[in-house]
Amino acid sequence: MTAYDAWLRKAADERDRDGLTRRLHPRERNSQLVDVAGNDYLGLARDPRVVAAAADAARTWGAGSTGSRLVTGTTELHTAFEIELAAFMNADAALLFSSGYCANLAVLQALADDDTLVVSDAGNHASLIDGCRLARAHTTVVPHADPEAVARALSNRTQTRAIVVTDSVFSVDGDLAPVAELHAAARTYDALLVVDEAHALGVVGAGGRGLVHGAGLAGEADIVRTVTLSKSLGSQGGAVLASRAVVDHLVNTGRSFIFDTGLAPACVGAARRALQILDASPQLADDVRRHARRIAAELGVAPPDAAILSVVLGDPQRALAAAERCRDAGVAVGCFRPPSVPAGTDRLRVTARADLTDDDIARVVETVAAAAKEQA
Amino acid sequence: MTAYDAWLRKAADERDRDGLTRRLHPRERNSQLVDVAGNDYLGLARDPRVVAAAADAARTWGAGSTGSRLVTGTTELHTAFEIELAAFMNADAALLFSSGYCANLAVLQALADDDTLVVSDAGNHASLIDGCRLARAHTTVVPHADPEAVARALSNRTQTRAIVVTDSVFSVDGDLAPVAELHAAARTYDALLVVDEAHALGVVGAGGRGLVHGAGLAGEADIVRTVTLSKSLGSQGGAVLASRAVVDHLVNTGRSFIFDTGLAPACVGAARRALQILDASPQLADDVRRHARRIAAELGVAPPDAAILSVVLGDPQRALAAAERCRDAGVAVGCFRPPSVPAGTDRLRVTARADLTDDDIARVVETVAAAAKEQA
Repeated sequence: MTAYDAWLRKAADERDRDGLTRRLHPRERNSQLVDVAGNDYLGLARDPRVVAAAADAARTWGAGSTGSRLVTGTTELHTAFEIELAAFMNADAALLFSSGYCANLAVLQALADDDTLVVSDAGNHASLIDGCRLARAHTTVVPHADPEAVARALSNRTQTRAIVVTDSVFSVDGDLAPVAELHAAARTYDALLVVDEAHALGVVGAGGRGLVHGAGLAGEADIVRTVTLSKSLGSQGGAVLASRAVVDHLVNTGRSFIFDTGLAPACVGAARRALQILDASPQLADDVRRHARRIAAELGVAPPDAAILSVVLGDPQRALAAAERCRDAGVAVGCFRPPSVPAGTDRLRVTARADLTDDDIARVVETVAAAAKEQA
Repeated sequence: MTAYDAWLRKAADERDRDGLTRRLHPRERNSQLVDVAGNDYLGLARDPRVVAAAADAARTWGAGSTGSRLVTGTTELHTAFEIELAAFMNADAALLFSSGYCANLAVLQALADDDTLVVSDAGNHASLIDGCRLARAHTTVVPHADPEAVARALSNRTQTRAIVVTDSVFSVDGDLAPVAELHAAARTYDALLVVDEAHALGVVGAGGRGLVHGAGLAGEADIVRTVTLSKSLGSQGGAVLASRAVVDHLVNTGRSFIFDTGLAPACVGAARRALQILDASPQLADDVRRHARRIAAELGVAPPDAAILSVVLGDPQRALAAAERCRDAGVAVGCFRPPSVPAGTDRLRVTARADLTDDDIARVVETVAAAAKEQA
């Protein structure tokens, strides 16, 4: 047995013992499950207009972008969508990536160097944490949603530059960052604020323009926002919204921009059409939040600020059993265990959608409540 | 002026001064350029069968996968393609990612820990280097294509486990890794060999099955391969080909797998159809290599082993001027400057395609030769 065989076996055995083994469950072609597990918050991934736009873009531009963005992977479609997305978000400029993950990696890797302090919220998404690891900066992790801790870290810094980085809607608990206070601290101490709006776009702020926009801070040159095209926009990809100077810097130094193939035209076309729909139907963002609050109220959990709510069960086996019970009853819910959540907070995660019907919501509430009670 | 304004301005000024500023050049809808810059090696990105498969997949499964692979982002289409890709490559199992970049990050981050030595070729792709940075392992960079240096590094190690990591076709010079010798060294010293076949799939080995397959080593449990779907397969995405134990480990611990949205169905469908075409038309791989050798011979540069050849000009301004001269004459070539290539090796990079016509090849040779001569 090789050293790797032994190591892989040991890791697998430990996962099994701890109830933490993850397995893939392929979705069926005509699944009848009510989906409150995914991030298709506006129900646009299967919208015929969005699907048609994906197909049209593939026909016009090809199934792939054929190269990195700086070589052959930028089409006029990419550029048109970047302009429209920047306008919608009230940003100076936008830059597309093949994923939100890669967008977050690039922002931190390209904007932080060994003379930069990065102040990172303890609840930040894995892609932001990995971005901090890739940057050669000094990273300080501060308690969750604690602007005073951020200010202290900034005021004590020895580095010339600093970045404050936070999710806007935290992906597991669904709570909002104190973005105005974070921006005030960042500005006081001459730092850049980086905000990941992945779970806020389409959900939070006027017409789903996100938390920074909702706080009246869109377009501030000392804020860099990232979004995904794979949640409310029903497609795939990520983007950075920032000043032209930051975007130009990313084009020139962002490793996951320069050395990655450009986003496939079908994904650009789909996200572009979805954004047009959101722009024309701003009530979609209200619908998803209203549905989330209603589900939470009926389940007796804290009222959510965005689309995400949790039913904490506190144990991986119980969370897994409850999720399987829901699935058997026709409802797909998220099952979150470590390392996705802290140990002891294993949970069902429910994500609302704008297009849930009253019947869907009743079924979700009944099913999740029963499964949670069974495992309580 | 903020600290960031000053820093961004200084970096931009330095790039301008050194002739290293990069700008995006959007491709037009009906571009008439002969493209020898991209990585669509088999010309399948615009193949009507591949484009139709992208559109069909979006219609059947939606424009996006709606969640991470472990939540809602795995469809039966993903699973079917993983099985077919593993069979084609003679691997135990395959795992799809949203990009080759993310596949490489996951392999190194998940398989290397603080008791692992990573031995990395000096010419490796940025995504492998970033993967080494993300892993908490000790990384030793060895001279390019030097199995003896690899063996020395492995023999001197103090860590329990070791990984040898290499591109199979190096993305800039287009040369091949000494994969049999690297595997022998890895096996002697109980290490895992990780090979990035991004530029080999569809080009190198019988029917384009890559360098490891060509060396008779496909299916060895101590080799992990990665590929992209965005080059020969004309789509977007990446995949890992490995033993079932490694794939299960990545499903459970690969951060860029767990925390990223699943690959969009349109991209999976397109790549799947492209692989079927390659499987049915193994001569496509011969065609692209033959075209590359012919272009190299007529340009008087070293015969390439894969699809990539370079005309080194040695200076960023000369390389940029030559690339612009080619573009004006109707030929899109790659212009590679630092940090994509070592300083002083600035170059035009030409990538052959299987579907180049005799006229295309004549035009490429004439245009590139004239532009290089002008800048010599």
